[in-house]
Amino acid sequence: MSARLEIIPIPGLPEIVPGNDLAGLIMDACQNTLHPEGLQDHDVLVVSQKVVSKAENKLEVVDPADPLSHKPLVLRESVRVVRRRGELIISETKHGYICANAGIDRSNMAPNIAALLPDDSDRSARRIRDAIRGRLEVDVAIIVADTFGRPWRRGLTDIALGCAGIRPILDLRGTEDAVGRELHVTEVCIVDELAGAAELVRGKSDGIAVALIRGVDPAWFGPGGVVANVVRSPTEDLFR
Amino acid sequence: MSARLEIIPIPGLPEIVPGNDLAGLIMDACQNTLHPEGLQDHDVLVVSQKVVSKAENKLEVVDPADPLSHKPLVLRESVRVVRRRGELIISETKHGYICANAGIDRSNMAPNIAALLPDDSDRSARRIRDAIRGRLEVDVAIIVADTFGRPWRRGLTDIALGCAGIRPILDLRGTEDAVGRELHVTEVCIVDELAGAAELVRGKSDGIAVALIRGVDPAWFGPGGVVANVVRSPTEDLFR
Repeated sequence: MSARLEIIPIPGLPEIVPGNDLAGLIMDACQNTLHPEGLQDHDVLVVSQKVVSKAENKLEVVDPADPLSHKPLVLRESVRVVRRRGELIISETKHGYICANAGIDRSNMAPNIAALLPDDSDRSARRIRDAIRGRLEVDVAIIVADTFGRPWRRGLTDIALGCAGIRPILDLRGTEDAVGRELHVTEVCIVDELAGAAELVRGKSDGIAVALIRGVDPAWFGPGGVVANVVRSPTEDLFR
Repeated sequence: MSARLEIIPIPGLPEIVPGNDLAGLIMDACQNTLHPEGLQDHDVLVVSQKVVSKAENKLEVVDPADPLSHKPLVLRESVRVVRRRGELIISETKHGYICANAGIDRSNMAPNIAALLPDDSDRSARRIRDAIRGRLEVDVAIIVADTFGRPWRRGLTDIALGCAGIRPILDLRGTEDAVGRELHVTEVCIVDELAGAAELVRGKSDGIAVALIRGVDPAWFGPGGVVANVVRSPTEDLFR
Protein backbone atom coordinates (compact mmCIF):
# COMPACT_ATOMS: atom_id res chain seq x y z
CA MET A 1 0.00 0.00 0.00
CA SER A 2 2.90 2.40 -0.32
CA ALA A 3 3.25 2.05 -4.08
CA ARG A 4 2.86 5.04 -6.36
CA LEU A 5 -0.02 5.30 -8.77
CA GLU A 6 0.32 6.68 -12.26
CA ILE A 7 -2.66 8.08 -14.16
CA ILE A 8 -2.11 8.10 -17.89
CA PRO A 9 -4.46 9.66 -20.46
CA ILE A 10 -5.05 7.46 -23.51
CA PRO A 11 -5.70 9.67 -26.53
CA GLY A 12 -6.28 8.46 -30.05
CA LEU A 13 -9.73 6.92 -29.83
CA PRO A 14 -11.66 7.83 -33.00
CA GLU A 15 -15.19 9.23 -32.88
CA ILE A 16 -17.21 6.20 -31.80
CA VAL A 17 -20.32 5.17 -33.73
CA PRO A 18 -22.82 2.38 -33.05
CA GLY A 19 -21.43 -1.04 -33.79
CA ASN A 20 -17.78 -0.04 -33.35
CA ASP A 21 -15.53 -2.63 -31.72
CA LEU A 22 -14.92 -0.37 -28.72
CA ALA A 23 -12.64 -2.84 -26.93
CA GLY A 24 -10.52 -3.23 -30.05
CA LEU A 25 -10.21 0.53 -30.53
CA ILE A 26 -9.29 0.97 -26.85
CA MET A 27 -6.61 -1.71 -27.17
CA ASP A 28 -5.17 -0.02 -30.27
CA ALA A 29 -5.09 3.36 -28.50
CA CYS A 30 -3.47 1.83 -25.41
CA GLN A 31 -0.81 0.00 -27.37
CA ASN A 32 0.08 3.24 -29.20
CA THR A 33 0.21 5.34 -26.01
CA LEU A 34 1.95 2.74 -23.88
CA HIS A 35 4.48 1.64 -26.50
CA PRO A 36 6.65 -0.36 -26.08
CA GLU A 37 5.38 -2.12 -22.95
CA GLY A 38 1.63 -2.04 -23.74
CA LEU A 39 -1.18 -2.98 -21.37
CA GLN A 40 -0.08 -5.00 -18.36
CA ASP A 41 -1.73 -7.24 -15.79
CA HIS A 42 -3.42 -5.18 -13.03
CA ASP A 43 -3.76 -2.04 -15.09
CA VAL A 44 -7.09 -0.31 -14.54
CA LEU A 45 -8.75 1.27 -17.58
CA VAL A 46 -11.38 3.92 -16.94
CA VAL A 47 -13.68 4.38 -19.94
CA SER A 48 -16.14 7.24 -20.38
CA GLN A 49 -19.81 6.21 -20.39
CA LYS A 50 -20.31 8.34 -23.48
CA VAL A 51 -18.23 6.15 -25.77
CA VAL A 52 -19.79 3.00 -24.33
CA SER A 53 -23.27 4.38 -24.99
CA LYS A 54 -22.30 5.34 -28.54
CA ALA A 55 -20.80 1.93 -29.32
CA GLU A 56 -23.87 0.22 -27.88
CA ASN A 57 -26.24 2.49 -29.82
CA LYS A 58 -27.87 3.90 -26.69
CA LEU A 59 -28.73 7.00 -28.71
CA GLU A 60 -32.04 8.76 -29.29
CA VAL A 61 -33.05 11.44 -31.75
CA VAL A 62 -34.13 14.72 -30.14
CA ASP A 63 -35.22 18.07 -31.50
CA PRO A 64 -32.03 20.08 -31.99
CA ALA A 65 -33.94 23.37 -31.71
CA ASP A 66 -35.35 22.48 -28.28
CA PRO A 67 -32.84 22.17 -25.44
CA LEU A 68 -35.51 20.38 -23.39
CA SER A 69 -36.54 17.84 -26.00
CA HIS A 70 -34.79 15.02 -24.14
CA LYS A 71 -36.91 15.50 -21.01
CA PRO A 72 -39.51 12.85 -22.00
CA LEU A 73 -36.61 10.41 -22.27
CA VAL A 74 -35.55 11.31 -18.72
CA LEU A 75 -38.93 10.19 -17.40
CA ARG A 76 -38.94 7.09 -19.60
CA GLU A 77 -35.52 6.03 -18.25
CA SER A 78 -36.55 6.66 -14.62
CA VAL A 79 -38.51 4.56 -12.17
CA ARG A 80 -38.96 7.34 -9.58
CA VAL A 81 -38.55 11.11 -9.53
CA VAL A 82 -36.68 12.00 -6.33
CA ARG A 83 -36.57 15.81 -6.62
CA ARG A 84 -37.57 18.33 -9.23
CA ARG A 85 -36.66 21.99 -9.39
CA GLY A 86 -37.37 23.92 -12.57
CA GLU A 87 -36.03 21.89 -15.46
CA LEU A 88 -33.79 19.80 -13.23
CA ILE A 89 -35.03 16.29 -12.56
CA ILE A 90 -33.20 14.10 -10.06
CA SER A 91 -34.49 10.57 -10.38
CA GLU A 92 -33.78 6.93 -9.76
CA THR A 93 -32.96 5.39 -13.12
CA LYS A 94 -34.13 1.96 -14.15
CA HIS A 95 -30.59 0.76 -13.40
CA GLY A 96 -30.82 2.07 -9.81
CA TYR A 97 -28.55 5.14 -10.00
CA ILE A 98 -29.82 8.37 -8.50
CA CYS A 99 -28.68 11.26 -10.67
CA ALA A 100 -29.75 14.28 -12.67
CA ASN A 101 -31.67 13.76 -15.91
CA ALA A 102 -31.34 9.97 -15.73
CA GLY A 103 -27.77 10.35 -16.95
CA ILE A 104 -28.97 11.50 -20.37
CA ASP A 105 -26.40 13.73 -21.98
CA ARG A 106 -26.36 15.98 -25.04
CA SER A 107 -22.91 17.50 -24.49
CA ASN A 108 -20.33 16.79 -27.17
CA MET A 109 -23.02 15.11 -29.27
CA ALA A 110 -24.61 15.97 -32.59
CA PRO A 111 -27.36 18.54 -31.85
CA ASN A 112 -30.12 16.06 -32.67
CA ILE A 113 -28.79 13.16 -30.62
CA ALA A 114 -28.95 12.38 -26.89
CA ALA A 115 -26.96 9.59 -25.27
CA LEU A 116 -28.65 7.36 -22.69
CA LEU A 117 -26.79 5.29 -20.13
CA PRO A 118 -25.75 1.76 -21.12
CA ASP A 119 -28.34 -0.89 -20.26
CA ASP A 120 -25.90 -2.69 -17.95
CA SER A 121 -22.61 -0.89 -17.36
CA ASP A 122 -21.15 -3.78 -15.37
CA ARG A 123 -21.74 -6.03 -18.36
CA SER A 124 -20.25 -3.41 -20.68
CA ALA A 125 -17.14 -3.37 -18.49
CA ARG A 126 -16.94 -7.17 -18.46
CA ARG A 127 -17.13 -7.32 -22.23
CA ILE A 128 -14.22 -4.91 -22.66
CA ARG A 129 -12.21 -6.78 -20.05
CA ASP A 130 -12.92 -10.14 -21.67
CA ALA A 131 -12.00 -8.85 -25.13
CA ILE A 132 -8.67 -7.53 -23.84
CA ARG A 133 -7.92 -10.80 -22.10
CA GLY A 134 -8.85 -12.68 -25.25
CA ARG A 135 -6.64 -10.69 -27.60
CA LEU A 136 -3.73 -9.54 -25.45
CA GLU A 137 -3.79 -12.15 -22.66
CA VAL A 138 -3.53 -9.50 -19.95
CA ASP A 139 -5.84 -9.19 -16.96
CA VAL A 140 -6.97 -5.59 -16.61
CA ALA A 141 -9.85 -4.07 -14.67
CA ILE A 142 -12.40 -1.88 -16.45
CA ILE A 143 -14.42 0.96 -14.94
CA VAL A 144 -17.19 2.66 -16.94
CA ALA A 145 -17.33 6.20 -15.55
CA ASP A 146 -19.86 9.01 -15.64
CA THR A 147 -20.06 12.46 -14.12
CA PHE A 148 -22.60 12.88 -11.29
CA GLY A 149 -23.56 15.73 -8.98
CA ARG A 150 -23.71 15.54 -5.21
CA PRO A 151 -26.56 16.83 -3.05
CA TRP A 152 -24.49 18.87 -0.60
CA ARG A 153 -21.43 19.83 -2.58
CA ARG A 154 -21.12 21.94 -5.70
CA GLY A 155 -19.37 20.68 -8.76
CA LEU A 156 -19.46 17.24 -10.25
CA THR A 157 -17.14 14.27 -9.87
CA ASP A 158 -16.73 11.14 -11.91
CA ILE A 159 -18.06 7.94 -10.40
CA ALA A 160 -18.22 4.32 -11.54
CA LEU A 161 -21.38 3.22 -13.36
CA GLY A 162 -19.99 -0.25 -13.83
CA CYS A 163 -16.81 -2.23 -13.32
CA ALA A 164 -15.21 -5.58 -14.03
CA GLY A 165 -12.15 -7.26 -12.61
CA ILE A 166 -11.86 -5.03 -9.53
CA ARG A 167 -13.62 -5.20 -6.19
CA PRO A 168 -15.69 -2.00 -5.96
CA ILE A 169 -15.57 -1.49 -2.19
CA LEU A 170 -12.65 -2.38 0.07
CA ASP A 171 -11.81 -2.14 3.72
CA LEU A 172 -8.63 -0.11 3.34
CA ARG A 173 -8.22 0.46 7.06
CA GLY A 174 -7.90 -3.13 8.16
CA THR A 175 -9.65 -4.39 11.25
CA GLU A 176 -7.24 -3.45 14.02
CA ASP A 177 -9.56 -0.72 15.12
CA ALA A 178 -12.73 -2.74 15.43
CA VAL A 179 -13.14 -2.95 19.20
CA GLY A 180 -16.03 -0.74 20.20
CA ARG A 181 -15.57 1.64 17.28
CA GLU A 182 -17.92 2.55 14.47
CA LEU A 183 -17.22 0.04 11.79
CA HIS A 184 -19.32 1.80 9.17
CA VAL A 185 -16.50 4.23 8.39
CA THR A 186 -14.05 1.64 7.10
CA GLU A 187 -15.37 0.74 3.66
CA VAL A 188 -13.88 2.76 0.82
CA CYS A 189 -15.48 2.85 -2.62
CA ILE A 190 -12.27 2.53 -4.58
CA VAL A 191 -13.95 2.36 -8.00
CA ASP A 192 -15.45 5.82 -7.47
CA GLU A 193 -12.09 7.20 -6.35
CA LEU A 194 -10.39 5.61 -9.36
CA ALA A 195 -13.05 7.05 -11.70
CA GLY A 196 -12.53 10.52 -10.23
CA ALA A 197 -8.76 10.22 -10.47
CA ALA A 198 -9.02 9.27 -14.14
CA GLU A 199 -11.26 12.26 -14.84
CA LEU A 200 -8.42 14.55 -13.81
CA VAL A 201 -6.40 13.59 -16.89
CA ARG A 202 -9.20 12.98 -19.38
CA GLY A 203 -10.02 16.63 -20.10
CA LYS A 204 -13.47 16.22 -21.60
CA SER A 205 -13.16 19.02 -24.13
CA ASP A 206 -10.09 17.31 -25.58
CA GLY A 207 -12.16 14.19 -26.15
CA ILE A 208 -9.93 11.78 -24.26
CA ALA A 209 -12.39 9.06 -23.32
CA VAL A 210 -9.99 6.60 -21.69
CA ALA A 211 -7.41 6.82 -18.91
CA LEU A 212 -5.19 4.13 -17.48
CA ILE A 213 -4.28 3.80 -13.81
CA ARG A 214 -1.14 1.81 -13.14
CA GLY A 215 0.19 0.73 -9.76
CA VAL A 216 -3.05 -0.44 -8.16
CA ASP A 217 -2.56 -3.09 -5.48
CA PRO A 218 -3.10 -6.54 -7.07
CA ALA A 219 -5.11 -7.50 -3.97
CA TRP A 220 -7.85 -5.10 -5.09
CA PHE A 221 -8.60 -7.14 -8.20
CA GLY A 222 -11.50 -9.55 -7.99
CA PRO A 223 -15.18 -9.99 -8.78
CA GLY A 224 -18.10 -7.67 -8.15
CA GLY A 225 -20.10 -5.07 -10.06
CA VAL A 226 -21.19 -1.54 -9.19
CA VAL A 227 -24.96 -2.02 -9.33
CA ALA A 228 -24.93 -4.97 -6.91
CA ASN A 229 -22.32 -3.58 -4.53
CA VAL A 230 -22.31 0.22 -4.64
CA VAL A 231 -25.81 1.37 -5.51
CA ARG A 232 -27.82 1.62 -2.29
CA SER A 233 -31.11 -0.15 -2.06
CA PRO A 234 -34.15 2.00 -1.20
CA THR A 235 -34.39 0.33 2.21
CA GLU A 236 -31.01 1.60 3.35
CA ASP A 237 -31.43 5.02 1.76
CA LEU A 238 -32.30 7.95 4.02
CA PHE A 239 -32.61 10.48 1.19
CA ARG A 240 -34.96 9.08 -1.44
CA MET B 1 -4.45 18.31 -20.30
CA SER B 2 -2.77 15.21 -21.62
CA ALA B 3 -0.07 15.09 -18.96
CA ARG B 4 0.24 12.11 -16.68
CA LEU B 5 -0.42 12.40 -12.98
CA GLU B 6 1.64 10.65 -10.35
CA ILE B 7 0.27 9.93 -6.87
CA ILE B 8 3.00 9.40 -4.33
CA PRO B 9 2.47 8.30 -0.73
CA ILE B 10 4.54 10.27 1.78
CA PRO B 11 5.37 8.03 4.75
CA GLY B 12 7.47 9.01 7.71
CA LEU B 13 5.23 11.44 9.56
CA PRO B 14 5.56 10.78 13.30
CA GLU B 15 2.53 10.42 15.57
CA ILE B 16 1.20 13.98 15.69
CA VAL B 17 0.40 15.61 19.04
CA PRO B 18 -1.06 19.03 19.81
CA GLY B 19 1.33 21.84 19.15
CA ASN B 20 3.45 19.95 16.63
CA ASP B 21 4.78 21.97 13.71
CA LEU B 22 2.74 19.94 11.22
CA ALA B 23 3.96 21.86 8.17
CA GLY B 24 7.56 21.34 9.21
CA LEU B 25 7.06 17.62 9.77
CA ILE B 26 5.30 17.30 6.39
CA MET B 27 8.21 19.09 4.70
CA ASP B 28 10.72 16.78 6.35
CA ALA B 29 8.78 13.70 5.27
CA CYS B 30 8.44 15.04 1.71
CA GLN B 31 12.10 15.85 1.39
CA ASN B 32 13.00 12.34 2.57
CA THR B 33 10.54 10.61 0.22
CA LEU B 34 11.19 12.83 -2.78
CA HIS B 35 14.98 12.92 -2.45
CA PRO B 36 16.84 14.31 -4.31
CA GLU B 37 14.43 16.64 -6.11
CA GLY B 38 12.16 17.51 -3.16
CA LEU B 39 8.89 19.41 -3.32
CA GLN B 40 8.35 21.34 -6.54
CA ASP B 41 6.15 24.19 -7.72
CA HIS B 42 2.62 22.95 -8.59
CA ASP B 43 2.82 19.84 -6.47
CA VAL B 44 -0.44 19.13 -4.64
CA LEU B 45 -0.19 17.77 -1.10
CA VAL B 46 -3.23 16.02 0.32
CA VAL B 47 -3.15 15.90 4.13
CA SER B 48 -5.46 13.81 6.29
CA GLN B 49 -7.84 15.80 8.49
CA LYS B 50 -6.86 13.60 11.39
CA VAL B 51 -3.31 14.88 11.66
CA VAL B 52 -4.49 18.48 11.21
CA SER B 53 -6.99 18.04 14.03
CA LYS B 54 -4.34 16.51 16.26
CA ALA B 55 -1.81 19.29 15.60
CA GLU B 56 -4.50 21.91 16.24
CA ASN B 57 -5.63 20.19 19.45
CA LYS B 58 -9.17 19.59 18.21
CA LEU B 59 -9.38 16.67 20.60
CA GLU B 60 -11.91 15.83 23.29
CA VAL B 61 -11.84 13.29 26.09
CA VAL B 62 -14.52 10.62 25.84
CA ASP B 63 -15.40 7.57 27.93
CA PRO B 64 -13.30 4.72 26.51
CA ALA B 65 -15.79 2.14 27.82
CA ASP B 66 -18.71 3.71 25.95
CA PRO B 67 -18.57 3.57 22.13
CA LEU B 68 -21.31 6.23 22.04
CA SER B 69 -19.71 8.67 24.46
CA HIS B 70 -18.85 11.09 21.65
CA LYS B 71 -22.49 11.52 20.61
CA PRO B 72 -23.04 14.65 22.73
CA LEU B 73 -20.08 16.17 20.89
CA VAL B 74 -21.79 15.38 17.57
CA LEU B 75 -24.78 17.49 18.56
CA ARG B 76 -22.57 20.27 19.95
CA GLU B 77 -20.61 20.47 16.66
CA SER B 78 -23.82 20.51 14.56
CA VAL B 79 -26.22 23.30 13.66
CA ARG B 80 -28.91 21.02 12.22
CA VAL B 81 -29.67 17.30 12.31
CA VAL B 82 -30.56 16.25 8.77
CA ARG B 83 -31.33 12.56 9.28
CA ARG B 84 -31.11 10.15 12.17
CA ARG B 85 -31.34 6.38 12.11
CA GLY B 86 -30.40 4.41 15.17
CA GLU B 87 -27.05 5.70 16.37
CA LEU B 88 -26.24 7.31 13.04
CA ILE B 89 -26.61 11.09 12.97
CA ILE B 90 -26.26 12.93 9.66
CA SER B 91 -26.03 16.62 10.37
CA GLU B 92 -24.90 19.97 9.09
CA THR B 93 -21.78 20.89 11.02
CA LYS B 94 -21.06 24.39 12.22
CA HIS B 95 -18.62 24.65 9.28
CA GLY B 96 -21.39 23.82 6.78
CA TYR B 97 -20.46 20.24 5.83
CA ILE B 98 -23.20 17.64 5.79
CA CYS B 99 -21.80 14.36 7.03
CA ALA B 100 -22.15 11.56 9.54
CA ASN B 101 -21.38 12.25 13.19
CA ALA B 102 -20.21 15.81 12.49
CA GLY B 103 -16.95 14.34 11.24
CA ILE B 104 -16.00 13.23 14.74
CA ASP B 105 -13.73 10.25 14.60
CA ARG B 106 -12.38 7.78 17.16
CA SER B 107 -10.63 5.45 14.74
CA ASN B 108 -6.86 5.15 15.13
CA MET B 109 -7.05 7.29 18.28
CA ALA B 110 -6.39 6.54 21.93
CA PRO B 111 -9.56 4.93 23.32
CA ASN B 112 -10.40 7.98 25.45
CA ILE B 113 -9.90 10.60 22.73
CA ALA B 114 -12.14 11.75 19.86
CA ALA B 115 -10.94 14.04 17.08
CA LEU B 116 -13.18 16.89 15.92
CA LEU B 117 -12.86 18.61 12.56
CA PRO B 118 -10.51 21.61 12.35
CA ASP B 119 -12.22 24.94 13.04
CA ASP B 120 -11.39 26.22 9.54
CA SER B 121 -9.86 23.65 7.21
CA ASP B 122 -9.24 26.21 4.46
CA ARG B 123 -7.19 28.23 6.93
CA SER B 124 -5.37 25.09 8.06
CA ALA B 125 -4.47 24.42 4.41
CA ARG B 126 -3.31 28.01 3.88
CA ARG B 127 -1.04 27.83 6.91
CA ILE B 128 0.68 24.69 5.65
CA ARG B 129 1.04 26.19 2.19
CA ASP B 130 2.45 29.44 3.55
CA ALA B 131 4.93 27.62 5.78
CA ILE B 132 6.20 25.57 2.83
CA ARG B 133 6.56 28.66 0.69
CA GLY B 134 8.38 30.40 3.52
CA ARG B 135 10.90 27.66 4.16
CA LEU B 136 11.36 25.98 0.77
CA GLU B 137 10.29 28.78 -1.59
CA VAL B 138 8.05 26.45 -3.58
CA ASP B 139 4.40 27.06 -4.41
CA VAL B 140 2.39 23.96 -3.63
CA ALA B 141 -1.34 23.49 -3.18
CA ILE B 142 -2.70 21.90 -0.01
CA ILE B 143 -5.89 19.88 0.38
CA VAL B 144 -7.13 18.81 3.83
CA ALA B 145 -9.07 15.60 3.19
CA ASP B 146 -11.62 13.61 5.13
CA THR B 147 -13.68 10.51 4.42
CA PHE B 148 -17.41 11.08 3.86
CA GLY B 149 -20.32 8.85 2.94
CA ARG B 150 -22.75 9.45 0.11
CA PRO B 151 -26.54 9.19 0.35
CA TRP B 152 -27.13 6.91 -2.64
CA ARG B 153 -23.91 4.95 -2.93
CA ARG B 154 -22.31 2.55 -0.49
CA GLY B 155 -18.76 2.98 0.65
CA LEU B 156 -16.94 6.16 1.52
CA THR B 157 -14.68 8.39 -0.53
CA ASP B 158 -12.25 11.07 0.48
CA ILE B 159 -13.30 14.66 -0.17
CA ALA B 160 -11.70 18.04 0.47
CA LEU B 161 -12.58 19.77 3.75
CA GLY B 162 -10.32 22.68 2.90
CA CYS B 163 -7.79 23.75 0.31
CA ALA B 164 -5.27 26.46 -0.47
CA GLY B 165 -3.46 27.38 -3.65
CA ILE B 166 -5.77 25.45 -6.00
CA ARG B 167 -9.12 26.43 -7.50
CA PRO B 168 -11.63 23.96 -6.06
CA ILE B 169 -14.04 23.81 -9.01
CA LEU B 170 -13.09 24.08 -12.68
CA ASP B 171 -14.86 23.99 -16.00
CA LEU B 172 -12.85 21.13 -17.49
CA ARG B 173 -15.06 20.87 -20.57
CA GLY B 174 -14.53 24.33 -21.95
CA THR B 175 -17.41 26.30 -23.36
CA GLU B 176 -17.63 25.00 -26.92
CA ASP B 177 -20.77 23.16 -26.01
CA ALA B 178 -22.69 26.01 -24.47
CA VAL B 179 -25.29 26.70 -27.16
CA GLY B 180 -28.62 25.49 -25.89
CA ARG B 181 -27.12 22.78 -23.69
CA GLU B 182 -27.33 22.28 -19.98
CA LEU B 183 -24.46 24.24 -18.57
CA HIS B 184 -24.82 22.84 -15.06
CA VAL B 185 -22.96 19.69 -15.98
CA THR B 186 -19.65 21.34 -16.82
CA GLU B 187 -18.18 22.21 -13.43
CA VAL B 188 -15.87 19.59 -11.97
CA CYS B 189 -14.89 19.58 -8.29
CA ILE B 190 -11.23 18.83 -8.81
CA VAL B 191 -10.27 19.10 -5.14
CA ASP B 192 -12.65 16.25 -4.28
CA GLU B 193 -11.27 14.12 -7.11
CA LEU B 194 -7.70 14.89 -6.00
CA ALA B 195 -8.59 14.00 -2.39
CA GLY B 196 -10.07 10.69 -3.50
CA ALA B 197 -7.08 9.92 -5.70
CA ALA B 198 -4.71 10.54 -2.78
CA GLU B 199 -6.72 8.23 -0.57
CA LEU B 200 -5.92 5.35 -2.91
CA VAL B 201 -2.26 5.42 -1.88
CA ARG B 202 -2.59 6.52 1.73
CA GLY B 203 -3.69 3.20 3.18
CA LYS B 204 -5.15 4.38 6.45
CA SER B 205 -4.12 1.38 8.50
CA ASP B 206 -0.51 2.03 7.54
CA GLY B 207 -0.82 5.52 8.96
CA ILE B 208 0.27 7.38 5.85
CA ALA B 209 -1.37 10.76 6.39
CA VAL B 210 0.05 12.62 3.39
CA ALA B 211 0.12 11.97 -0.35
CA LEU B 212 1.58 14.08 -3.12
CA ILE B 213 0.05 14.50 -6.57
CA ARG B 214 2.47 15.61 -9.24
CA GLY B 215 1.61 16.63 -12.79
CA VAL B 216 -1.46 18.79 -12.12
CA ASP B 217 -2.04 21.46 -14.77
CA PRO B 218 -0.49 24.76 -13.53
CA ALA B 219 -3.66 26.53 -14.76
CA TRP B 220 -5.59 24.86 -11.95
CA PHE B 221 -3.64 26.71 -9.27
CA GLY B 222 -5.23 29.83 -7.86
CA PRO B 223 -7.30 31.18 -4.99
CA GLY B 224 -10.48 29.81 -3.41
CA GLY B 225 -11.45 27.69 -0.42
CA VAL B 226 -13.75 24.70 -0.06
CA VAL B 227 -16.28 26.18 2.35
CA ALA B 228 -16.97 29.24 0.18
CA ASN B 229 -16.94 27.42 -3.17
CA VAL B 230 -17.89 23.78 -2.71
CA VAL B 231 -20.22 23.54 0.27
CA ARG B 232 -23.78 24.17 -0.95
CA SER B 233 -25.86 26.79 0.78
CA PRO B 234 -29.18 25.64 2.23
CA THR B 235 -31.06 27.64 -0.42
CA GLU B 236 -29.64 25.62 -3.32
CA ASP B 237 -29.88 22.30 -1.50
CA LEU B 238 -32.74 19.96 -2.40
CA PHE B 239 -31.87 17.35 0.23
CA ARG B 240 -31.57 19.07 3.61
